[in-house]
Amino acid sequence: MSKQGVTPRSEDYSAWYNEVVVQAELVDNPEKTPVRGCMIIKPYGYELWEAVKSNLDRRFKETGHQNAYFPLFIPMSFLEKEADHVEGFAPELAVVTHGGGKELAEPYVIRPTSETIIGEAMSRWIQSFRDLPLLLNQWANVVRWEKRTRPFLRTSEFLWQEGHTAHATHDEAQAEALQMLDIYAEFAIEKAAIPVIKGQKSDQERFAGALRSYTIEAMMGDGKALQAGTSHNLGQNFARVFDIQYVDENNEQQYCWTTSWGVSTRMVGAIIMAHGDDQGLRLPPEIAPIQVVLVPIWRKDEEKVGVLEVVDRLRDTLKAKGLRLHVDLRENVTPGYKFNDWEMRGVPVRIEIGPKDVEKGSAAIARRDIPGKAGKEFINQDKVVDHVLQLMVDIQANLLKQATEFRDSNITIVENDYEKFGEILRNNGWALTWFCGGAECENRTKEDFQAVSRCFPLDQPQPAMKGKCICCEGEADRMAYFAKAY
Amino acid sequence: MSKQGVTPRSEDYSAWYNEVVVQAELVDNPEKTPVRGCMIIKPYGYELWEAVKSNLDRRFKETGHQNAYFPLFIPMSFLEKEADHVEGFAPELAVVTHGGGKELAEPYVIRPTSETIIGEAMSRWIQSFRDLPLLLNQWANVVRWEKRTRPFLRTSEFLWQEGHTAHATHDEAQAEALQMLDIYAEFAIEKAAIPVIKGQKSDQERFAGALRSYTIEAMMGDGKALQAGTSHNLGQNFARVFDIQYVDENNEQQYCWTTSWGVSTRMVGAIIMAHGDDQGLRLPPEIAPIQVVLVPIWRKDEEKVGVLEVVDRLRDTLKAKGLRLHVDLRENVTPGYKFNDWEMRGVPVRIEIGPKDVEKGSAAIARRDIPGKAGKEFINQDKVVDHVLQLMVDIQANLLKQATEFRDSNITIVENDYEKFGEILRNNGWALTWFCGGAECENRTKEDFQAVSRCFPLDQPQPAMKGKCICCEGEADRMAYFAKAY
Repeated sequence: MSKQGVTPRSEDYSAWYNEVVVQAELVDNPEKTPVRGCMIIKPYGYELWEAVKSNLDRRFKETGHQNAYFPLFIPMSFLEKEADHVEGFAPELAVVTHGGGKELAEPYVIRPTSETIIGEAMSRWIQSFRDLPLLLNQWANVVRWEKRTRPFLRTSEFLWQEGHTAHATHDEAQAEALQMLDIYAEFAIEKAAIPVIKGQKSDQERFAGALRSYTIEAMMGDGKALQAGTSHNLGQNFARVFDIQYVDENNEQQYCWTTSWGVSTRMVGAIIMAHGDDQGLRLPPEIAPIQVVLVPIWRKDEEKVGVLEVVDRLRDTLKAKGLRLHVDLRENVTPGYKFNDWEMRGVPVRIEIGPKDVEKGSAAIARRDIPGKAGKEFINQDKVVDHVLQLMVDIQANLLKQATEFRDSNITIVENDYEKFGEILRNNGWALTWFCGGAECENRTKEDFQAVSRCFPLDQPQPAMKGKCICCEGEADRMAYFAKAY
Repeated sequence: MSKQGVTPRSEDYSAWYNEVVVQAELVDNPEKTPVRGCMIIKPYGYELWEAVKSNLDRRFKETGHQNAYFPLFIPMSFLEKEADHVEGFAPELAVVTHGGGKELAEPYVIRPTSETIIGEAMSRWIQSFRDLPLLLNQWANVVRWEKRTRPFLRTSEFLWQEGHTAHATHDEAQAEALQMLDIYAEFAIEKAAIPVIKGQKSDQERFAGALRSYTIEAMMGDGKALQAGTSHNLGQNFARVFDIQYVDENNEQQYCWTTSWGVSTRMVGAIIMAHGDDQGLRLPPEIAPIQVVLVPIWRKDEEKVGVLEVVDRLRDTLKAKGLRLHVDLRENVTPGYKFNDWEMRGVPVRIEIGPKDVEKGSAAIARRDIPGKAGKEFINQDKVVDHVLQLMVDIQANLLKQATEFRDSNITIVENDYEKFGEILRNNGWALTWFCGGAECENRTKEDFQAVSRCFPLDQPQPAMKGKCICCEGEADRMAYFAKAY
């Protein structure tokens, strides 16, 4: 009964996040979860993940991908085959040394990602050009042992999908990597209402073993960046290491070009931080587990019958329109408590029906994206359905608009001014600046401002131009976003 | 290109199974899968699992259950709290001893099932009678280190759902356990066309730590039994061990009553073995990933255009009816090869369109459940849609009918004749007989015939009667099925 109010975001954003995920019942209290660094996802949080999952899964299938399932365990020797890859993941591995009461001859690691084990399978499954492209996806749990963890953002075990594809040519693999990035961005923008920026990672920030890594970067409510999904053109690196070859039309052996791409439960963290306010979550209608909550209000028993009659009727008509709806019939808490509770959970629309509404044939409708009285209207009961359907569209659009305006107001273009660049980053802003892409420069910004490049946006603001790198002043042909990040 | 034919079932049922799962491309070849005892589920096999999943998930949600997600890792100390439970699972545990480059202070086991970690969470989440019932489900991978493994039937890692619920009273928990058994049985019978028998496990065969275990038992094509799903009333055992208490209406502390229930990728094995024949799989239309395959046939290029025109038109009209459909456009294999291939994969209906069909306005339609010419009809193209929709119903019904007749013809009621009882079991039949339920008796049948009781059917053939136990001749008030089992 204590879940009434969280630390304001302006006071302590981190505390706000930690309190919201618990009070909105997205996860079990991390301090009480018995496995360090792992989260228990509670039903409401899992429903959000299911919304991410079902939307993406549909898009994957529409674009010809098929789901498969590969083992949780990966022989240590597989990981060691690709030098960059093992170097990137070694510090984070969980290792199984015993099975069935015996010590294992070769220890298994729990998959931190599955390029290696899927690469080995592809080498056996692909024979000829006719077997290409091979377009696989897997929904799975992965483990990366993390020192500091936060629910959804960084946990030792997390849920994700990992796509793995093999192609005959570089260009096809490249097109695939970019297609999946588009699908991620479309989901983020259209469904999660997060105006992500599509871009390419610097060499240093690239996935371990990839040729090129692409990302969708989202701005959180405190201005920090969050990598919400990645897509990699792996070139022929994994194909050479795992011998993924095909016989082409001329009967010659060729190495495949592979890709991988993933979105994880981190996306749930992005949704929380892109839209949340001091009252809690604000969920976009497209992915909200509950789109409308109906709160009946009465004091005397004789009022109850009439109120519930109206509530039941509205429930039925709204459900018939396909809306996801909940009626809050709890009798041991006050209406005010219920309002706060559903605001904390970010339900887009709340409908209140009291004895006066029964008399007048009205309903009080509050939209979550506009706080207080400004967001509350009294509507004729006959018009509730149309009004609510319109609100679904409006709230979805408004959340995206607000997030876009917030994002744009926190991006500053900066050229040839390292001091100003630093000031932007120190204030949790995003700096869009010329960048040579070098590791030394990135190490310097990391040391100076705890920030590295987020990406070279695919949509360059001055595509035909060149400039001077913000760090080394060497020639730079692309601009990059720099920001502190989760 | 070698996937043309498998060992006949009558010759070597086990070889038949192992060949079918590979040739129908349900799984990667187990001999080549690099992680011993784990399977790689290929797309076609995974689609079957997705059909199981989506059907069950919908039913779980309709009955008020919510999905959640709990950690893969379980502290060893949790498992040790329930004596029977740890004894049951200890020999099969995979143990993580190292994480992030360091030895762990307390080793984690990889969940073999999650009663313990979910029980601990329930103890914190449940305070009052208002929090009950708590109805959770989790879709997850689990690990039980197995010595002898077979794809889907017994693998070291498998996929499943595990439901975990807490209730105020014994009767509610009991009703829940039986409700979930009903949902499993309905899925098996109505969707998978497997005439499972619902029953209760003997004390010895009961889940480690349960009060009562229920099962759906399916008869496979060789007569052996397969436990296809289980549901347990856990009594107050786990509640006492994990201190899952609630304050009742009289303000008194009470222990909860909990249940757990699960269906795994084993169900896919059941579908294969309940229906498969010497040509491969036979899939019930309700769950078939592909319900209809269209095979265009032509020799000369000038024939191709006309054939594909008809095929495209049929594809569109059939798809518009919601049928799951594939057009086999491969040009490097013969029509005969394609026919065998789709028969191996168990696609319920095949439509062939050749140049003569273009001329005559006809289509050749072959149903997978009736082999050869008897199952093939030539239909006017205008009537294909109605005919195929009817076939979906007929094939679904016919597979269930065939499996039911096979099951019933392999069940023998036997009383007071241990020798005959043994003969039935030796011939892979099911014996329905009086059984006292004692462990000694069951150990004896195990030793004598490698068979134990499968269940006391809920639907007793002679409910008001008593009889003499087939083994010890002591009083028995229920009859049980005995059979060899997977």
